[in-house]
Amino acid sequence: MNKQIANHLLSIEAVSLKPEAPFTWSSGLKAPIYCDNRVTMSYPDVRRDLILGFVKLINTHYPEVTAIAGTATAGIPHAAWVAEELGLPMVYVRSKPKEHGKKSLIEGRLKKGDRVVVIEDLISTGGSSIHAAKAVKEAGAHVLGVAAIFTYGLAKGKEAFDACELDYQTITDFKALVTEAVNRGEITANEQNLLLSWQQDPIGWSQQQ
Amino acid sequence: MNKQIANHLLSIEAVSLKPEAPFTWSSGLKAPIYCDNRVTMSYPDVRRDLILGFVKLINTHYPEVTAIAGTATAGIPHAAWVAEELGLPMVYVRSKPKEHGKKSLIEGRLKKGDRVVVIEDLISTGGSSIHAAKAVKEAGAHVLGVAAIFTYGLAKGKEAFDACELDYQTITDFKALVTEAVNRGEITANEQNLLLSWQQDPIGWSQQQ
Repeated sequence: MNKQIANHLLSIEAVSLKPEAPFTWSSGLKAPIYCDNRVTMSYPDVRRDLILGFVKLINTHYPEVTAIAGTATAGIPHAAWVAEELGLPMVYVRSKPKEHGKKSLIEGRLKKGDRVVVIEDLISTGGSSIHAAKAVKEAGAHVLGVAAIFTYGLAKGKEAFDACELDYQTITDFKALVTEAVNRGEITANEQNLLLSWQQDPIGWSQQQ
Repeated sequence: MNKQIANHLLSIEAVSLKPEAPFTWSSGLKAPIYCDNRVTMSYPDVRRDLILGFVKLINTHYPEVTAIAGTATAGIPHAAWVAEELGLPMVYVRSKPKEHGKKSLIEGRLKKGDRVVVIEDLISTGGSSIHAAKAVKEAGAHVLGVAAIFTYGLAKGKEAFDACELDYQTITDFKALVTEAVNRGEITANEQNLLLSWQQDPIGWSQQQ
């Protein structure tokens, strides 16, 4: 499954690899990869495979789930599809409270004791997932884990999840994607090495650009 | 259908009526009604009926649709469900551009010439729907119209849509909702009159509170 989804992400350019002409992320860091999984919304066949991928992850790792939470904004469409496929209630978690109104981070209704899976488009340093998981816990529900389309597989992300004892699972990942890009003839072995060296040390890699 | 959905919205308190103890809206205006259609996400049976309601609206009024656009944030989950039910591409429209990146209002991919229906949770003064429709047009696509769960039926909203020649359709509306609330014994005839007088002149009504 991770191979098929990696292929999809490359085919529709949800993920782009440019090891020789890096992207500048919003953090200011240079990186050889850019990911916009939101574009998967616009490809019904791709998103159907993603929905099935999420359902497989959840049935395997979090079968006791009772509610789905999407991270605003990018995680909401996939959370909606997964919730509908599983016939479960859905909420979403704002990145910050509304300026007016109840100041709640959670939209929709969670029940106390709900067992929640957080749906995320992308795991980088884990910040958005961890923020959402905390909000769900503060609302009195349990968080079984985070399910995401893709992870860069950065040490910083893994450490952040470990530090708050939060489990996460992804449909595909950086390693599978880079391997598929080589198989598809889109990058050379040298470019593959550049990508892998970025993953090992993204800050050092950026500074050398 | 509008009666069934009005009943759903009252049952789960997505819409609340308090003619004797008005709500204060984020605009500062007092109103006898408050609507949070986002809570429908958390009720699988209700949202399924909403999805079918949207599909019926679209098949009747906009059968030539080729893509679905949700208004961020509240319109995104319903847009996702409708797009999946119809097997169509989906995008969503931000209320303002991201601080970083491409400055685009549209997330996901629209094709030039796409015939788009905008999905909205609620129509009040029409601002959010009209903003989304403009963004879709600026991206080179056509807007067939806006489909929403509910409208307050305010003159200001109707005038705003008319002024930009934008069609809209809703699954249910203020009049159907108030009628159902009377039938359910939730409000008296006198409270019904208070609600209808608000709809005729919401600013004057607010000033008298």
